[in-house]
Amino acid sequence: MTAPTTLRVGVIGTGMIGRDHIRRMTTVLSGLAVVAVADVDPTVAERVAAEAGAVAFPDGLDLIAADSVDAVLVCSWGGTHERYVLAAIAAGKPVFCEKPLATTEKACLRIMAAEVAHGSRLVQVGYMRRYDAAYLAMKQTLESGAIGAPLMMHCAHRNAGVPAFYEPENTITDTAVHEIDMVRWMFGSEIAAVRVLRPRASRNAGDLPDPMLIVLELANGVLVDVEISVNVRYGYDIRGEILGEDGTVSLGDPGLISVRRAGRVATPVPADWRDRFGSTYDVELRAWADSVLGGGVSGGPGTWDGYAAAVVSDAAVRALRTGERIEVTLAERPGLY
Amino acid sequence: MTAPTTLRVGVIGTGMIGRDHIRRMTTVLSGLAVVAVADVDPTVAERVAAEAGAVAFPDGLDLIAADSVDAVLVCSWGGTHERYVLAAIAAGKPVFCEKPLATTEKACLRIMAAEVAHGSRLVQVGYMRRYDAAYLAMKQTLESGAIGAPLMMHCAHRNAGVPAFYEPENTITDTAVHEIDMVRWMFGSEIAAVRVLRPRASRNAGDLPDPMLIVLELANGVLVDVEISVNVRYGYDIRGEILGEDGTVSLGDPGLISVRRAGRVATPVPADWRDRFGSTYDVELRAWADSVLGGGVSGGPGTWDGYAAAVVSDAAVRALRTGERIEVTLAERPGLY
Amino acid sequence: MTAPTTLRVGVIGTGMIGRDHIRRMTTVLSGLAVVAVADVDPTVAERVAAEAGAVAFPDGLDLIAADSVDAVLVCSWGGTHERYVLAAIAAGKPVFCEKPLATTEKACLRIMAAEVAHGSRLVQVGYMRRYDAAYLAMKQTLESGAIGAPLMMHCAHRNAGVPAFYEPENTITDTAVHEIDMVRWMFGSEIAAVRVLRPRASRNAGDLPDPMLIVLELANGVLVDVEISVNVRYGYDIRGEILGEDGTVSLGDPGLISVRRAGRVATPVPADWRDRFGSTYDVELRAWADSVLGGGVSGGPGTWDGYAAAVVSDAAVRALRTGERIEVTLAERPGLY
Amino acid sequence: MTAPTTLRVGVIGTGMIGRDHIRRMTTVLSGLAVVAVADVDPTVAERVAAEAGAVAFPDGLDLIAADSVDAVLVCSWGGTHERYVLAAIAAGKPVFCEKPLATTEKACLRIMAAEVAHGSRLVQVGYMRRYDAAYLAMKQTLESGAIGAPLMMHCAHRNAGVPAFYEPENTITDTAVHEIDMVRWMFGSEIAAVRVLRPRASRNAGDLPDPMLIVLELANGVLVDVEISVNVRYGYDIRGEILGEDGTVSLGDPGLISVRRAGRVATPVPADWRDRFGSTYDVELRAWADSVLGGGVSGGPGTWDGYAAAVVSDAAVRALRTGERIEVTLAERPGLY
Repeated sequence: MTAPTTLRVGVIGTGMIGRDHIRRMTTVLSGLAVVAVADVDPTVAERVAAEAGAVAFPDGLDLIAADSVDAVLVCSWGGTHERYVLAAIAAGKPVFCEKPLATTEKACLRIMAAEVAHGSRLVQVGYMRRYDAAYLAMKQTLESGAIGAPLMMHCAHRNAGVPAFYEPENTITDTAVHEIDMVRWMFGSEIAAVRVLRPRASRNAGDLPDPMLIVLELANGVLVDVEISVNVRYGYDIRGEILGEDGTVSLGDPGLISVRRAGRVATPVPADWRDRFGSTYDVELRAWADSVLGGGVSGGPGTWDGYAAAVVSDAAVRALRTGERIEVTLAERPGLY
Repeated sequence: MTAPTTLRVGVIGTGMIGRDHIRRMTTVLSGLAVVAVADVDPTVAERVAAEAGAVAFPDGLDLIAADSVDAVLVCSWGGTHERYVLAAIAAGKPVFCEKPLATTEKACLRIMAAEVAHGSRLVQVGYMRRYDAAYLAMKQTLESGAIGAPLMMHCAHRNAGVPAFYEPENTITDTAVHEIDMVRWMFGSEIAAVRVLRPRASRNAGDLPDPMLIVLELANGVLVDVEISVNVRYGYDIRGEILGEDGTVSLGDPGLISVRRAGRVATPVPADWRDRFGSTYDVELRAWADSVLGGGVSGGPGTWDGYAAAVVSDAAVRALRTGERIEVTLAERPGLY
Repeated sequence: MTAPTTLRVGVIGTGMIGRDHIRRMTTVLSGLAVVAVADVDPTVAERVAAEAGAVAFPDGLDLIAADSVDAVLVCSWGGTHERYVLAAIAAGKPVFCEKPLATTEKACLRIMAAEVAHGSRLVQVGYMRRYDAAYLAMKQTLESGAIGAPLMMHCAHRNAGVPAFYEPENTITDTAVHEIDMVRWMFGSEIAAVRVLRPRASRNAGDLPDPMLIVLELANGVLVDVEISVNVRYGYDIRGEILGEDGTVSLGDPGLISVRRAGRVATPVPADWRDRFGSTYDVELRAWADSVLGGGVSGGPGTWDGYAAAVVSDAAVRALRTGERIEVTLAERPGLY
Repeated sequence: MTAPTTLRVGVIGTGMIGRDHIRRMTTVLSGLAVVAVADVDPTVAERVAAEAGAVAFPDGLDLIAADSVDAVLVCSWGGTHERYVLAAIAAGKPVFCEKPLATTEKACLRIMAAEVAHGSRLVQVGYMRRYDAAYLAMKQTLESGAIGAPLMMHCAHRNAGVPAFYEPENTITDTAVHEIDMVRWMFGSEIAAVRVLRPRASRNAGDLPDPMLIVLELANGVLVDVEISVNVRYGYDIRGEILGEDGTVSLGDPGLISVRRAGRVATPVPADWRDRFGSTYDVELRAWADSVLGGGVSGGPGTWDGYAAAVVSDAAVRALRTGERIEVTLAERPGLY
C-alpha cells in the first residue's frame, strides 16, 4: 500500500478494442490516465479524446514522441503495428501492442532486432489468456506435478459467430492464434509442426473452413489438437483438457447458477468473449501497468512470443491451404528473451 | 466514457476490512482517492495514512467534518457505527457503513430518523452479496418467471472456521446476517418469524451452536431454511437453491478447473470469503462510488435494510436462546425507503 | 456359480406395482418363477395368470396356503396387507410386502407379535431406496468416516405430479415415507420428533399441502429437513446432502449426457420414478430372492422398519394437521430385530 | 408379459468373459439356460459345467451340433472364432461371438460369404457399447436434430492399466476397436481413412504406444479424433463429445455421489470397465436373447460390422507402424446387411 503514482498512457487506434481499453483505464483501473489519443480518423480521435479528458494527436508517431506520454497502447489496424512499436522502442517507451505484434515474420524480426539493440524489454503483446484465472489454475496444477508430466492436450475454441470481414485465414490469425500462444505458454515449449484437418463444413460456414482440427506438435513432444469452430451458434465456449501421465486437468464449466426446469438442469454458456474473458483484460492491463510502474520487465508475452505466434500462424495458414504437415522454423532466440 | 471525476473518501477504522477497502480504492478501482484516515489508535492511523498518501485524523468526527472529504467509509468497531453515521448524515455526506448499521434496534431507528429528517438517502450498508454475480443471476432468473413464483429456499453457509472471538450470537450477527439480508433482497419481502433448530453439535464446535438450521418465514409466504456451519473445515462454501412453482434455481459450483486423478474428478472449493467474494467487494464499492459521483440515490442496501437485518438478527438470537419461534415486528417503513 | 434353483412366487394384487413385479420376475430376473396370482378382481387375476404362465387363485389366502408357492409378494391395497402378511407368517412362508406394512400402528404391532412368536424373520417391506446405488454409495462414504460424524441432512423429494387420488396425508404416507425409511436406515437411528412447516402453496397444489418442509429429529441428534414437492412439473428429482463434521456427501446429478445448445449446457432430469429408480426395484427383488433362496435372513427392511415408518408417518400427519412438533414413541424393540 | 420360453445356450470358452456370461445367464437374466459348455481345457469345462448345471463337451464343434443347444456363445480365443462361427452358421444356429469376429480380414469375408449363402442373419458380435445407456442417449439426441448435423467428435478412452500380454497393436485391436465400432454406429457411416499421431510416451507406457491420437475420417465427412491412453492410472474413463452445426452432445460424468472435503468437491471415476459398462453387458445379452427368442433378426452389430471393424483396425495398426494416413477399402456390402 503506497501513495499511488499514475501511468500516463497514449492510445493509438480507437476501434472497439482501443475504446474498450480507454474505458478500462478511465473508469475501472486505478493508477492509469489516458492522456493522449490518436486515430487514423482525426475526427474520431478528437471526439474520443474529449470524452476521456485527453489530448488528440493527428499522428501516432507524434503521440509516441510527446513528453506527456509515459507508455503507449497500440490498438490500431495490424498492418500499422510495426511502425508504432518500432517508434516506441526508439523512444525508449514501454508499449503494449494488441495482437498481432506485426503481420509478417520479417516485421516481427525487425522489431526483435530493435528491442535487442535497445538492450531491455519494452514490448508486451496482447495475448490475454495468460491472465485468465482458469488457465492460470490449470498451469499451476500442471506445474504442481499433480497429474504428472504433460502428454497431450485437447482444446476447443468455439465462437457463436464471427464478423463479416472474416476470410479463411482469419480463423487462424485472429482466432486460433490465441490457442497457439496459450499452448506455448502452458507447456513452456515451442511448436515444431502443425497440421490442419478438415471435416465436412458446417452449413453455417459460408466460405470459411469451419470447423477444423488443428494439430500442434510441440518441441517437447506434447501433442495438442484444437477444434476451431467459428459459427457454432450456441455461445462462446472455450475448453481444454491436459492429459498428464497420472491424470488430467480441464477448464471448468464455470456456470454461476444452474436452473432446473422443463426436464433439464441447465447452466448458461457465455454469449461472447466479453462474458468469458471480460475481466481478464482488466487483469492483463493491471499487470502491464504494474510492471511498467514498478520499473521492471513485464512477465507478460513479449516480442519473442509475438514473433513465434506469427510464425506458427503462418505455418498453420499454409497447412490449411495445402493439407500438408508444415514444420515450423524459428530464428535463434536472443538472450534478451 | 466521460472525463473522470475523483471521489475523495475518508476512512474511519483501519482493521482488516478498512485496510482492504483502502487497498481497493488505492490500487484497484479508478476514480476514488483515499484522502483521510482515522483510527482509534492514532499511531496506526498515521502509518496507514502515510502509506496511502492521505491525512491522518485523530478523531473520526473531525474526518467527517473535513472539507477535503466528500464521502465516508465507516469500518470501525460496530459499537461506534451509530456515532459516525449520524455525524455523516448531519454533515450531509454520503456514508458507506460496514455491517452492522448499528448494534441495537434503537440505534438503527435513530439513524433512520436522522436520515428521514435529512430528506434524502445518504447511507449504504455493507451487505455485499447483493453485488455478487451469482446471486444477481439467481435473482434475474427468479424475476424472469422461468421457475414460477418462489415457494421455498434452502441455503447453506459454511465457514472452514471462525475467529477465536466468536461468541454463540456471532454465528447469527456476523455470519447468518448475510443470509438474512440476501433473503429479504432476493424475495422483496420482510422476514416475519424465525426459528433456530439445533442438531447435535460438531466435535469442532467448541462453545458455539454449530451447526444450526435457521428457519425464516417471509411475509409473502416464502419459507427459507439456512444451514449455518462455522467449523466445517473443508472450505468456505455458500450454497442456495430456490424452489419455484415450475422449477428451481441454484448457485452454481463455479470451479475454474477440474482435476481427474487418483480415482476422482475434483473441483476446488473456495478456501475462504476472499476466494469466494473477493471481487464482489470491488463491484460493491464501485457501485457505491458511481452512485455517489452520479449524484443519485444508491440502489444498494440502505438504512431500512440495516435496521431490518438488525431486528431479524435480534429475533434469531432470541430464538437460539429460547428454542422458540420468534415473530419479527418492524417499525412502519418511512416513505423515504 | 451354482446350479440354479428357482423360487416359486405367488403374487397377491395385480395393480401397477404387482404387474411390474410379475414382469420383473418373468422377463428380467433369473431364478424366480411366478406360479400363482390372486386379485380382488378374479377376471384380472385369470388374465394376468394366463399371460405369466401361472395359476389364478380366487383368494390370496388360498394362494398363500398352496404347496406350489414358496414365497409371497403382497402388492394389494394397503388395507389388506395385515391379513396376507399374517397368513404368510402363519404358513411359515417368506413374504415381501409392498409399503406400507399395514395402515395402522396396531396392525403393524400385530404383525410384529406374530413374527416374534414365529421366532425368525419372514417379512421384507418394499422400501427400495436402501438398494439404490447412489444411496448405498452415500452410506458407504458416511461409514468410511471421510466426512466425520453426521450432523444434518437436507433432502428434497420432488414429483412432477401425483395421481388424482392423492389426499393431503398421501404426501406423507405415500411420498415422504420413503425419506423417513431412508433416514432411519442411513443414520441407524430412530426418529424422535417431527415437524411439518408450510410455505405458501404452489399454484399447482390443488388441495394438497404442497410444498412442505418436514423436519425430523433423530434420537442420535442428527437433524434432517426434507422438502416435499408433489407438483413441481419439471421432473422427478430426488436429492440429498449429509453434513458431517469434516465435509458433506451428496447424491450426484447423474445425467447420462449433457447437451450444449441455445446458450445452455443441459443435462436431463428423470421424468418419473421409473427413470430414477427403475433398476433399483430389480436389485431389491434380486436381493430378497437371494436371501430367501439362501435360507438366510433378509438384510432388507423388515417388520420393525415397517412399524417404525408407520409410526413416524402417523406423527407427521398429525404434525401437518396441527402445526405442532410431535414426539414419536415406539414400542420396545424385540430382540428379533 | 407372456409365458416365458427359455433359450438353451451353449458356451464355448470359459475364460474371464465366458464365465462372466455364464454367471449373467445363470444368476441375473431370466429366460436363458446354460445347457452346454466347452473349453480348450476339458477339466475346466467339466468344472464350470458342473457349477452351472450344464453338460461339458470335449469340443466346441460337438457343442454346436448338439440338439440340446439352441444358440451359441463364442468366448474362446480370437483365433478360433472363425471355426466356431462358421459351424454355427452351417448348423443354422444363432451365434453371439465376442469381439473380434475373426482375426483376419479374409476370415471375416469367409464368415460373411457363409452367412449370405445361408440367407439370413445369425451372427451378433460383442460390441456392447451400442447398448450403453449414455451412448444411446447421445445417438438419440443427435438423431433428434437438437444439435444439427454432426461435424466432428472428440473421444477419450483411458484405461488405468492394461494386462501384461498387451503388445503395441493390442492398443488398437483390443482397445480402440470399441471406439471404431461405436463411431461407425453413431454416425451411420463407414470409416474412410485413419491416422495415428503420437506424442511423447508416458513414463508408464512400457513398450506400448501410449498415449496416441487416432484420427478417423468418415465417408460422410465427419472427423473423429480419439485419445487412447492405456496406463492413465487414475481410473477407467470413457469420454466423448459430438460437435454438430448448432451445438454439442457429450457423455456425462455420471457420478452417483459427490463428496465435499479437504478443499475439494469430488466425484468418483469408475475403477475399471466393470464399473462403467457392467450392466451394459446385461442389456446386450438380454437384447440378443430377445431377438433370438422372438425369431427376428438381431438389431445388434453383425457380421458386416465385425468385418468393417477388423479392416479399420488393420488400417490403424498399419498407420501406427508407418506414421502414414491409411485409406480403408471395404468389400461391397451384401444386401443382407
